[in-house]
Amino acid sequence: MAVLCGDDRPRGMADVERVAEVRYADAAGLPEALSGADVLFVWDFLSNAVGDAWHAADRLRWLHIASAGVDPVMFTGMRESDVVLTNSRGVFDSSIAEYVLGVVLAFAKDFARSVELKHAVRWQHRETERVGGTNALIVGTGPIGRAIARLLRAAGMNVAAAGRRAREGDADFGTVHASSELTRHVGWADYVIAVAPLTEQTKGMFDGSVFGAMKPSARFVNVGRGELMVTGDLVTALDSGELAGAALDVFETEPLPAESPLWRMPNVLITPHMSGDFIGWKDALVEVFTDNFDRYRSGEDLANVVDKQLGYVPTGSRRTA
Amino acid sequence: MAVLCGDDRPRGMADVERVAEVRYADAAGLPEALSGADVLFVWDFLSNAVGDAWHAADRLRWLHIASAGVDPVMFTGMRESDVVLTNSRGVFDSSIAEYVLGVVLAFAKDFARSVELKHAVRWQHRETERVGGTNALIVGTGPIGRAIARLLRAAGMNVAAAGRRAREGDADFGTVHASSELTRHVGWADYVIAVAPLTEQTKGMFDGSVFGAMKPSARFVNVGRGELMVTGDLVTALDSGELAGAALDVFETEPLPAESPLWRMPNVLITPHMSGDFIGWKDALVEVFTDNFDRYRSGEDLANVVDKQLGYVPTGSRRTA
Repeated sequence: MAVLCGDDRPRGMADVERVAEVRYADAAGLPEALSGADVLFVWDFLSNAVGDAWHAADRLRWLHIASAGVDPVMFTGMRESDVVLTNSRGVFDSSIAEYVLGVVLAFAKDFARSVELKHAVRWQHRETERVGGTNALIVGTGPIGRAIARLLRAAGMNVAAAGRRAREGDADFGTVHASSELTRHVGWADYVIAVAPLTEQTKGMFDGSVFGAMKPSARFVNVGRGELMVTGDLVTALDSGELAGAALDVFETEPLPAESPLWRMPNVLITPHMSGDFIGWKDALVEVFTDNFDRYRSGEDLANVVDKQLGYVPTGSRRTA
Repeated sequence: MAVLCGDDRPRGMADVERVAEVRYADAAGLPEALSGADVLFVWDFLSNAVGDAWHAADRLRWLHIASAGVDPVMFTGMRESDVVLTNSRGVFDSSIAEYVLGVVLAFAKDFARSVELKHAVRWQHRETERVGGTNALIVGTGPIGRAIARLLRAAGMNVAAAGRRAREGDADFGTVHASSELTRHVGWADYVIAVAPLTEQTKGMFDGSVFGAMKPSARFVNVGRGELMVTGDLVTALDSGELAGAALDVFETEPLPAESPLWRMPNVLITPHMSGDFIGWKDALVEVFTDNFDRYRSGEDLANVVDKQLGYVPTGSRRTA
């Protein structure tokens, strides 16, 4: 089997190495490592190297990625192949939910300004916002979105979601609106949370029309993928006061270039694609792979099988590689 | 009746003014305003002016303060008088609870550093902490402490309290330890939350011995009163790594003097006595007074009567002025 990684190799692979020939490779070495391999473990989960090396995947049956989002491996050759794709669903749910509640509270309580005033040695009283009773629209109905919904609701917020299919009575969200009608529903929200998978349908879904339909007092939070938003439209909307702020953990280009105006906007919180990365996350990611590897070896159904037409794991699906 | 206020007079007093002679006074004018008054509404709730003007309180029956803490009016003359004291219990419960959960999440997710890195235009990935499963010890078992307990527990934290009397099975806290044995119990906590009323018993309760008994990874949060802590001991403990950080909304001297080393400590979040001050707090405070004023006029029991021996409102007590 092949493992795509840089200098940062996954730890905890000893049991796998005892029963399989494991070839660790960076982007340049991936074609050679892939040749003859039946399993590919994409540890460097933001790399786009798999597409370039795909011609060498002559025996591949299973590809596992150490992330929830699978967009870096959803190129046509992969999608049309028989290779089974699995992801790391579940690892990031609670930590990303905590991050989202944290940025909501940071906005409401004006913490960024408190940090700045501390550096300026300035005592400046402000009135701040309540979080209880405010409205959060969670765009993306996967397990991370569900964990966010449960935590925000526990903190006293009202929650609704947007997903592929409109429906009522969802256990976590209550009402789910159709993502295709986002402009009709974002006006209700004090916080709009982007956590959808990146697919052809969701790319650029947060554009000027959506930002323009938000409350001027509302904030936009992106913990999904940078490509879900049209960054230029977001900058324009923030500049013109169409919305009040943004907390962004993901960006169209990462690392976020120094020349991006987002760095200099006062109402923007920037974190470097780390919202889910709790202490211990790498061990948890290896465990998700090794658990699935045990299933693979014994011929059991794999966990977290991605529907390659949808671009994410439909609830409850398993499949043998 | 007399109202102690500065330039910032309470709004919403029209109904009271229709039925009572209302004298608005600052500290200097308070003795004249108090003379002949049966009611004193302390709107400027951080002022110590009432003690200095007490000699003029010749007909006073009821003193209401626009805060939860009553320590500024707990001087001997007041305590030994027959004047009924009421406070603004309830107004700040939810907003302070949200502030506490917010600072807990800000520590866990390293938000202050994210704000600083943004100003430096630096993309620097870090692993951050989970909040779920961590332990919070809430020192103070009044309604604000209870609201904090419920919210932190809703966010997945384990909660215990310290109060005057040790007990088990409290509806909000579960276990309540005796505050007198704080050093034996703070070692359990990842977050120690100070929200006790300021009394002779609680003054300086957070000293070097308590900070020294905390986990080196733990944080101290003070939303009670600055005098609950020995500030010099806190600075020493933070400097020596006996604890990992502090979020302070209250201080022994307010505004916090520019020369305080706290301003320059990297692991300290400073807010200017505003944790409870949500947008609308002043209207809510006036409403607590006017509701009680209606009770006073009709001879009903007053709400939120402070036990002047304890220094706070025992649960459920009412009394006619």
